[in-house]
Amino acid sequence: MQVFENGVVELEHVKLLEATNDEHGGVIVEMEEPMAPQAFATVLTASMLHWKHQGKRGVWIKLPINLVNLVETAVKAGFWYHHAEPNYLMLVYWIPETANTLPANASHRVGVGAIVLNDKREVLLLVGVEIFPDWGVSSSHGSALPSALYFLGWKLLVVREKSGKFQAIGLWKIPTGIVDEGEDISKAAMREVKEETGIDTEFLEILAFRQSHKSFFGKSSLFFTCMLRPLSFDIQKQEQEIEAAQWMPLEEYAAQPFVQKTRLLKYTTELCLAKINKSYTGFLPHPTTSIFGNRPGYLYLNSRDLNLSNCDD
Amino acid sequence: MQVFENGVVELEHVKLLEATNDEHGGVIVEMEEPMAPQAFATVLTASMLHWKHQGKRGVWIKLPINLVNLVETAVKAGFWYHHAEPNYLMLVYWIPETANTLPANASHRVGVGAIVLNDKREVLLLVGVEIFPDWGVSSSHGSALPSALYFLGWKLLVVREKSGKFQAIGLWKIPTGIVDEGEDISKAAMREVKEETGIDTEFLEILAFRQSHKSFFGKSSLFFTCMLRPLSFDIQKQEQEIEAAQWMPLEEYAAQPFVQKTRLLKYTTELCLAKINKSYTGFLPHPTTSIFGNRPGYLYLNSRDLNLSNCDD
Repeated sequence: MQVFENGVVELEHVKLLEATNDEHGGVIVEMEEPMAPQAFATVLTASMLHWKHQGKRGVWIKLPINLVNLVETAVKAGFWYHHAEPNYLMLVYWIPETANTLPANASHRVGVGAIVLNDKREVLLLVGVEIFPDWGVSSSHGSALPSALYFLGWKLLVVREKSGKFQAIGLWKIPTGIVDEGEDISKAAMREVKEETGIDTEFLEILAFRQSHKSFFGKSSLFFTCMLRPLSFDIQKQEQEIEAAQWMPLEEYAAQPFVQKTRLLKYTTELCLAKINKSYTGFLPHPTTSIFGNRPGYLYLNSRDLNLSNCDD
Repeated sequence: MQVFENGVVELEHVKLLEATNDEHGGVIVEMEEPMAPQAFATVLTASMLHWKHQGKRGVWIKLPINLVNLVETAVKAGFWYHHAEPNYLMLVYWIPETANTLPANASHRVGVGAIVLNDKREVLLLVGVEIFPDWGVSSSHGSALPSALYFLGWKLLVVREKSGKFQAIGLWKIPTGIVDEGEDISKAAMREVKEETGIDTEFLEILAFRQSHKSFFGKSSLFFTCMLRPLSFDIQKQEQEIEAAQWMPLEEYAAQPFVQKTRLLKYTTELCLAKINKSYTGFLPHPTTSIFGNRPGYLYLNSRDLNLSNCDD
């Protein structure tokens, strides 16, 4: 076998595309060097015959954007789009006559919202706790005290955005943002708080999450509401996207008319209250590798209820 | 303004691409009719000047795969790939000189694993419960009884796959699969169990989830471990992907050497035990619409701890 510079290999006097095997009986071609569309068409046809002969299943061709002139040739050869990123397009073809079992493209965007409560409580409530020591432990549902009293002295980190739907209604909201590809949910929550408000935080847990669909070009979305502990208190708001940021008394946040009439935002208030009362447990992150040990990540679960020591190695 | 059949509009004698405004100060062009690349290049250049004049920001061009001959023209005009699906390619351009704030492509694939426990317990443990009534309520960590005793009589729905890494090691594993774009996590879990084993189930809750990265073409992944209640018991395994399926005694599942040495799989055993002992609370789904009321979905949270009635409308 002879290998040429442009990613073409010659096998028994027939030029073929250089390919690597994937784990599922298919082949992957990563084109890197420029080639004329006609030459590509010829070598692609020969390669397809060769792979079919070998009993290969899926054929992947990754074309960097500078080889855009080869896209049409691949599509004419029967390939279709699998996914694209700014700098490349992935095309795919399924050789067998059975239904294709090619893995789907990424389907979800992931967002985070950060609840950051300032526990520098005011003197009022500290006195209150002295007088009514059970305030600090009773849950909001069972108590005869009005919920509003639990708010006193607690402040929530909130922002007003410069554009978009939340700006239009003047809502003070918790910092939110999109989790980047390759980024941990916990890191994304800390990053967004830092970017929007300048506040340093420690990630504690995930309190809730929501799945919805057709949010953006038909994709689905997952939004994680996270609890973080502030490590600094002086706000330095971001100029580009944030109009204003502040530590807002929780009762003021909860009293906003749009919060009052929006179920998802009322849940946020209730989650704050439940955390203040120490009556709520979310999912905490635990570092683990994947089943075959090759990829680190975090397992999130209710570790108040589960004996993690049984799982240690 | 005159509109032509091929999606070109004529404005003051200059032909432009027909575009709709998006919510972020940009425009979206959805090409549908065939056009020669040269004609497309001309009308695209004029359109770009027009949009720049108008102060537009992001420009989106959606090209169905049958218009693949126009991809190269758009890239030569400065566009790059945003995302692709089997039948179209989305290209994008950012007009302002400031850093682009274009939304990112979908970043995560979402998987589910289904824990389905058969509560038709055997006589042995029923007798055991009579003799040691605290077995049913004590948690596995605090008890002096060996954990193994809790397994007795419970069966877990497991499968052996026909291909892949799990087949290679002969592992009996819980049914797993990928959540489709637009599909609820709860529905995906029930669907995978039905497809692989023929068992009908009711979705109960999410016990844990895991985020990891670089799982597939650099994308990140989220995997949700779900608890389901079986509604039927006769297994009918799927032919294409499943080698075998059975209700396996939980102690046999837990005793598999690969489970014993793999932390993530030991967590699964522990979660089963904690559910059997009724000592674990996961996140339960609650139907909600999005903040602006336009998209239904599910909010998952610990509803043992949170007073949901406060959030009702």
